[in-house]
Amino acid sequence: MDTFDSISPLDYRYYGNDKEVFEKLQPYLPETAAIKYQLMVEAALVKTLAEKKICSRKVADEVEKAAKTVTAAEVYEEEKRIKHNIRALVNCIRNKVSNEAKPYVHFTATSNDIISTAESLRLKDAAINALLPQLLQLEKTLIKIARREKNTLQIGRTHGQHAEPITFGFTIASYVSRLGGRIAAAAAAANNMRGKFAGAVGAYNASSLLVKDAEEFEASVLKKLGLKPATHSTQIVEPEFAADLMHAVVSAFGVMANVADDMRHLQRTEVGEVAEQFGAEQVGSSTMPHKRNPINFENVKSLWKEFMPRMMTVYADQVSEHQRDLTNSASSRFLPEIIAATFIAAKRLNSAMEKLIVVKENIRKNFEMGKGIIAAEPAYILLAAAGHPDSHEYVRKLTLLSQQLQKTFQEVLFNDAVAQPYLKKLTKEQLKLLQSPEKYTGIAAEKTEKVCRHWEKVLKL
Amino acid sequence: MDTFDSISPLDYRYYGNDKEVFEKLQPYLPETAAIKYQLMVEAALVKTLAEKKICSRKVADEVEKAAKTVTAAEVYEEEKRIKHNIRALVNCIRNKVSNEAKPYVHFTATSNDIISTAESLRLKDAAINALLPQLLQLEKTLIKIARREKNTLQIGRTHGQHAEPITFGFTIASYVSRLGGRIAAAAAAANNMRGKFAGAVGAYNASSLLVKDAEEFEASVLKKLGLKPATHSTQIVEPEFAADLMHAVVSAFGVMANVADDMRHLQRTEVGEVAEQFGAEQVGSSTMPHKRNPINFENVKSLWKEFMPRMMTVYADQVSEHQRDLTNSASSRFLPEIIAATFIAAKRLNSAMEKLIVVKENIRKNFEMGKGIIAAEPAYILLAAAGHPDSHEYVRKLTLLSQQLQKTFQEVLFNDAVAQPYLKKLTKEQLKLLQSPEKYTGIAAEKTEKVCRHWEKVLKL
Amino acid sequence: MDTFDSISPLDYRYYGNDKEVFEKLQPYLPETAAIKYQLMVEAALVKTLAEKKICSRKVADEVEKAAKTVTAAEVYEEEKRIKHNIRALVNCIRNKVSNEAKPYVHFTATSNDIISTAESLRLKDAAINALLPQLLQLEKTLIKIARREKNTLQIGRTHGQHAEPITFGFTIASYVSRLGGRIAAAAAAANNMRGKFAGAVGAYNASSLLVKDAEEFEASVLKKLGLKPATHSTQIVEPEFAADLMHAVVSAFGVMANVADDMRHLQRTEVGEVAEQFGAEQVGSSTMPHKRNPINFENVKSLWKEFMPRMMTVYADQVSEHQRDLTNSASSRFLPEIIAATFIAAKRLNSAMEKLIVVKENIRKNFEMGKGIIAAEPAYILLAAAGHPDSHEYVRKLTLLSQQLQKTFQEVLFNDAVAQPYLKKLTKEQLKLLQSPEKYTGIAAEKTEKVCRHWEKVLKL
Amino acid sequence: MDTFDSISPLDYRYYGNDKEVFEKLQPYLPETAAIKYQLMVEAALVKTLAEKKICSRKVADEVEKAAKTVTAAEVYEEEKRIKHNIRALVNCIRNKVSNEAKPYVHFTATSNDIISTAESLRLKDAAINALLPQLLQLEKTLIKIARREKNTLQIGRTHGQHAEPITFGFTIASYVSRLGGRIAAAAAAANNMRGKFAGAVGAYNASSLLVKDAEEFEASVLKKLGLKPATHSTQIVEPEFAADLMHAVVSAFGVMANVADDMRHLQRTEVGEVAEQFGAEQVGSSTMPHKRNPINFENVKSLWKEFMPRMMTVYADQVSEHQRDLTNSASSRFLPEIIAATFIAAKRLNSAMEKLIVVKENIRKNFEMGKGIIAAEPAYILLAAAGHPDSHEYVRKLTLLSQQLQKTFQEVLFNDAVAQPYLKKLTKEQLKLLQSPEKYTGIAAEKTEKVCRHWEKVLKL
Repeated sequence: MDTFDSISPLDYRYYGNDKEVFEKLQPYLPETAAIKYQLMVEAALVKTLAEKKICSRKVADEVEKAAKTVTAAEVYEEEKRIKHNIRALVNCIRNKVSNEAKPYVHFTATSNDIISTAESLRLKDAAINALLPQLLQLEKTLIKIARREKNTLQIGRTHGQHAEPITFGFTIASYVSRLGGRIAAAAAAANNMRGKFAGAVGAYNASSLLVKDAEEFEASVLKKLGLKPATHSTQIVEPEFAADLMHAVVSAFGVMANVADDMRHLQRTEVGEVAEQFGAEQVGSSTMPHKRNPINFENVKSLWKEFMPRMMTVYADQVSEHQRDLTNSASSRFLPEIIAATFIAAKRLNSAMEKLIVVKENIRKNFEMGKGIIAAEPAYILLAAAGHPDSHEYVRKLTLLSQQLQKTFQEVLFNDAVAQPYLKKLTKEQLKLLQSPEKYTGIAAEKTEKVCRHWEKVLKL
Repeated sequence: MDTFDSISPLDYRYYGNDKEVFEKLQPYLPETAAIKYQLMVEAALVKTLAEKKICSRKVADEVEKAAKTVTAAEVYEEEKRIKHNIRALVNCIRNKVSNEAKPYVHFTATSNDIISTAESLRLKDAAINALLPQLLQLEKTLIKIARREKNTLQIGRTHGQHAEPITFGFTIASYVSRLGGRIAAAAAAANNMRGKFAGAVGAYNASSLLVKDAEEFEASVLKKLGLKPATHSTQIVEPEFAADLMHAVVSAFGVMANVADDMRHLQRTEVGEVAEQFGAEQVGSSTMPHKRNPINFENVKSLWKEFMPRMMTVYADQVSEHQRDLTNSASSRFLPEIIAATFIAAKRLNSAMEKLIVVKENIRKNFEMGKGIIAAEPAYILLAAAGHPDSHEYVRKLTLLSQQLQKTFQEVLFNDAVAQPYLKKLTKEQLKLLQSPEKYTGIAAEKTEKVCRHWEKVLKL
Repeated sequence: MDTFDSISPLDYRYYGNDKEVFEKLQPYLPETAAIKYQLMVEAALVKTLAEKKICSRKVADEVEKAAKTVTAAEVYEEEKRIKHNIRALVNCIRNKVSNEAKPYVHFTATSNDIISTAESLRLKDAAINALLPQLLQLEKTLIKIARREKNTLQIGRTHGQHAEPITFGFTIASYVSRLGGRIAAAAAAANNMRGKFAGAVGAYNASSLLVKDAEEFEASVLKKLGLKPATHSTQIVEPEFAADLMHAVVSAFGVMANVADDMRHLQRTEVGEVAEQFGAEQVGSSTMPHKRNPINFENVKSLWKEFMPRMMTVYADQVSEHQRDLTNSASSRFLPEIIAATFIAAKRLNSAMEKLIVVKENIRKNFEMGKGIIAAEPAYILLAAAGHPDSHEYVRKLTLLSQQLQKTFQEVLFNDAVAQPYLKKLTKEQLKLLQSPEKYTGIAAEKTEKVCRHWEKVLKL
Repeated sequence: MDTFDSISPLDYRYYGNDKEVFEKLQPYLPETAAIKYQLMVEAALVKTLAEKKICSRKVADEVEKAAKTVTAAEVYEEEKRIKHNIRALVNCIRNKVSNEAKPYVHFTATSNDIISTAESLRLKDAAINALLPQLLQLEKTLIKIARREKNTLQIGRTHGQHAEPITFGFTIASYVSRLGGRIAAAAAAANNMRGKFAGAVGAYNASSLLVKDAEEFEASVLKKLGLKPATHSTQIVEPEFAADLMHAVVSAFGVMANVADDMRHLQRTEVGEVAEQFGAEQVGSSTMPHKRNPINFENVKSLWKEFMPRMMTVYADQVSEHQRDLTNSASSRFLPEIIAATFIAAKRLNSAMEKLIVVKENIRKNFEMGKGIIAAEPAYILLAAAGHPDSHEYVRKLTLLSQQLQKTFQEVLFNDAVAQPYLKKLTKEQLKLLQSPEKYTGIAAEKTEKVCRHWEKVLKL
């Protein structure tokens, strides 16, 4: 099947059509990887059998070697015949080993000892080796921008309305902090993925036939793969380990969606504080040759809308009847898509942020727009501190008055009789701040630095 | 990229690995189809330009011919250079035509005149030419079973508990009716998909430059494709047409999930009323050689859990800022996956139902289990009709008594003094029914036939 | 329990705390209404029994009268004792009638004959009597604005970027059209709600004991309530009728969320094209006395985020095992919340739109911002029409040049040698349009009028 | 408003109508609690102001005392006038204090310093004081059953099919382990809830006017409430802390849904291994007086279907524009509903499990059904261990043969010539196990004990 004959946009567009993405994800996320991981688990099993003297080391070596040569195509061919994917995998290995070794392939294992363990390991590796490095790269980019712009005065916005002054670096520090937290959560969840070797119903029925300590046997197999067993298993590993990882990943995607949305809005024509870089050959619109659209930020938001609802499937798959029903089988095959999409969005967002154009004159111009009115908040607080019993209401009315009179808030305030006794109590510095609200940025710059340093330390950047 | 290098299970497993599915869906759902439909729209445009004498018929023919030769690979190659997918498509056509024809390729169109229209048409065709025939096939299979089993006595179940008698055909008639309704809804929604040729912001700015009646021009282009225009467009067609189609499709999937779930439960070891057919070579379990699992029914339910939540994305994509933001662009690329998965589930369910083994002795055995107690409902009703002022409570206590005494409900009832005056008022037929509750099936068989005939007529089967 | 002791924000804030909302919704949506509707169904049943001579007219009158006096509190009290809600309801009626009448209360009915029918009717009435009038009111408000502003020149925006000219009325016409479509869909779905009187497993087991034509009996009961029977029922009505209604309602909410989002963004400080009206006493912020926030638009969007995902529950509830399991019982109790929230959002949005401040000077100012560049699209089209073989690319480069030279696009275009031969072919009118792109609004005003008229006709406004 | 005039089933049915639930949740989850927590935060603020000598201790005492007397009704009354909920709260306090104290009420705080902090604390307290004790109670009940039944032989089921033997205690141990993990996760997330006192845009603009170390000031206020500050805040606390808590809660609900589903299915008429206890007065069905339905288990599953999708809202609310938009305001008001529903389900499930009837004769009878075939798995493994090169396929065919011949698997196996050389190599114990598969329970009993002990230790039960 050709790439463009794929139905999934992940396959034909975002992964199959992007060499860099393909190379990063191919070891973990396609079906070839699923089968490779299953073969790794079969190899770990037979190695353990040899350690426990259940089979010979020679048999173990033979099986391990054979497992390395089995391909996805072979397995699918065999599955067509017998209609069972793991038995097909097992047959493919068995066909490549001696009669002596044959019985020890998959010995005592149930399909889901292999599948659950392989999938846990695969998702863990995909998170740790592919997704997290990409998220950390984005985190570094954000930290760099936050630091660089920590003193760039910007108007803070709430409800889409100008509120109080901050700095552009402080804006970015918000994402640094939130993404940092999500990276830590994803790393913890990935490192907590578990395997199982407890048989068809979880009671170690089969392995107990042959080994004294079936739990120790399970732990030995899993240790070879870098996993720990779940506290309890049925046919499958407790689904909550994967649910925690998916939650961490999806909520990291949520932070990225927020970054993307904010950048989109800051790029609105009237706001113009940032812009995506555009290539010289790049076409903005098929009919409006002049357009410069925030297509990368839009893409990140759009992918989030597609993949965030997939958590419903994760939660629905928590429910599996008795020692397991198979209604999570097809659906859990789609979990790697969530990691792929998050990786792709992170890569794209990082690239857009790395090249982000910060339009300082527009940031400044927007700040100037409502400069006067900004002083209303410090005015209300300083008047209150000076003893005005109802300064919030008093200042609220002054702002209405200043709009009616088309004067600046300061003009109105400093000329209003009521204000005089309180203004007299203020320090020079406080009075200056009321005149120059660009100084009213609180601790935006220091906080930015602090947040960056905090996450550099936590994430060992 | 090789099939098994795909990340999406749709691509590597359910579509790319299944020749029959591939052949049915390939004309509509992969990226090659998306591009083919866009080229069809470009061709319809230039044909209309010729009709309106804006370009020559020769130019139109040249463009149409060129459009037929453009491939997905070419378009993607060009997109890499200029980073705009529709402009890339346009360039690919332009490169294959004379200088005279070049200006008329995509003339006056905005990208989304092409994309929105092509996608509406593609989803419509996929629904009508691929999905609906498969759903109708399933409907026919269900009707066949319903009719065949309309007299097969079965215990009706509510809360998983035996309730009152029905027939197995009546059970199936429920799915006939519900799926029938969904097929009708999906057909209506598919036939109501709309296109647009209203330009970059929907006001026909560009086309109004050149044609007198821009709406008539739009209608002409779309008519060639078998579509009507939306009542109003911005850059995109009103999203509710596609939302209605997706709702119909997803809710049809919900009915199939219900069928699958019911069959799974009727196949439980203890119930055993139906069974999936098993191939002679088919392996049930990698470790339990004797297992016969309802894997097809499980698969249908599992796919539903994956795809049903995608409606969240459809609803989220209703919101597009102003004359359109692009945050629905990536996400709407995934809509064909919903149709693909519904098709795949329908095909699989149909195949499992066609070969469904109905185990009549178990259906009968289960019915016999609680045969006595079944009479409680008609007893309560007939006693009430005979004038007992509190027969529900009276009968409820008799059932408790029969359990305590380990006697049948009938023994207890017919020997209870209180009942006598009322029993005397009953007809022979009514008394017989109390003794033989297998007659207490209401109009199960007639209703089954009626439902089948109704939907055959509505769906023209 | 006091209003503010409620946990649900619907109860304590949006409905219980708003007299107008309370009065509109109280007849349909609270538990008192649920029970009132169940009593209505019980009354319709006994009336039909009398018609069919199964009981006397006197008995029927007695029951009907009694049913009118039963209260929710009584039913809940009785339910505490016997743990069955419908039996409790039945007992409450029975307690108020003579021994002669007692047997005919709920006679032959199963609980869900009452519940399914009552809920179908209640949701239908809630939609038709409460929600639709409110949505129609909003539609009228939107039509009024669209017409009033159909000539108010506005810059159309795609990707948050200035695109091509439209009018503000045309912007609003988009909502008129989309909401109009949703109202029509909701009305159709509401009028298609169905009832059932087919007994415990849907085969009319009980009613067949006493009436010849059980389906005719069902139809008679339902006709009294203005409902038709479902094509097939199990214990419950086919869930797809309610799913269709909920889809129509939720997708109508989606259109409102889009309106709200657009208004929010048009109210951004830098854009300032619209504003919510603010009361003289209204406080914008507890600390920033000057803030004027789009709180009503934000509220509508926020409620949509809460209620849109509820469709997942609707879809999940399609799956009910065999003749019914009860796992949809608690969840379906929440359906009225979706209607309540949509009503509340519609009312709030209508009120905000009715008082919407349209800031024409800002609309104009924003339009002027990029006035020059707007001409790029018509320039590209007119040059192409004049025979330029590659005018899109040519114009794209001119726009880059105009930015570099800090000249208007027109200056650059009219002075570029390459353009001259093509410009000469243009009509005076076309040249004028390139100079005055405010004329480049396509058919925005006519289309606005047309859309308004269309929906007035369809919706009989 | 009367309880039954509520629209929300939580209010009128599951909380408002249940005294025990009401008493547990009323301190945390209704609007009265929301306002009480906001008043607590206002009190903590003024206390800190006094500590920092910004106001006098007397003023602080006066405000704290006044705050304790403000009621929800008062606040709502004032909000109607000024249309701002926190300013209304502030006014209510201010109205009760001296002019000297007035300026210090809410001093330097923005609304969301109060709201975000109060909500974090409220959700934390609701989780720790109400929800977790209920979940722990359920955990204890499960542990008790697991231990009690750890030796009760039961057939393990996969795909709804009999698989291999376990014990009923082992079945329950699966829930012990999974719920245990979720309780630990919920406790961790609850204890990690954060507050903020960083002002309108998060940069401590206002507080920096008056205190030297604004972060230290924030920490002081929050410490009084038992909270730590978020690493970074905008107008609101980073939303991921609440998202983590909701994920833990919703995934705990998922485990309960699984328990409920399993119990429902074990209560199916044909399975009959467990039963919900029924009261003597309890009515099972309005028309089938004999029905004993798993209504509590159904209710738990049904509530899960309603509340699990609410995570979509939680994820959607991660996205808040710039320093905050208000589109999470209404939606976040619904978070307490998730905790309420999880509490209610846990309580109900606990009560049903406490009284669970374990029907040992049915458990045994079901086990006997397929006793023979169970031996297929150990047979395949032991034959393989004895050197059979293809024992899985060999045994698979024997099981088919045993079904054809209507003999037990053992009869067929022990009489088959091929098996003889391998059977000879088995130990007596192994041969005995093949004859008596009830011994083939692996380490089910020991593992059950181990899992119980593990979670007792981790959760300090």
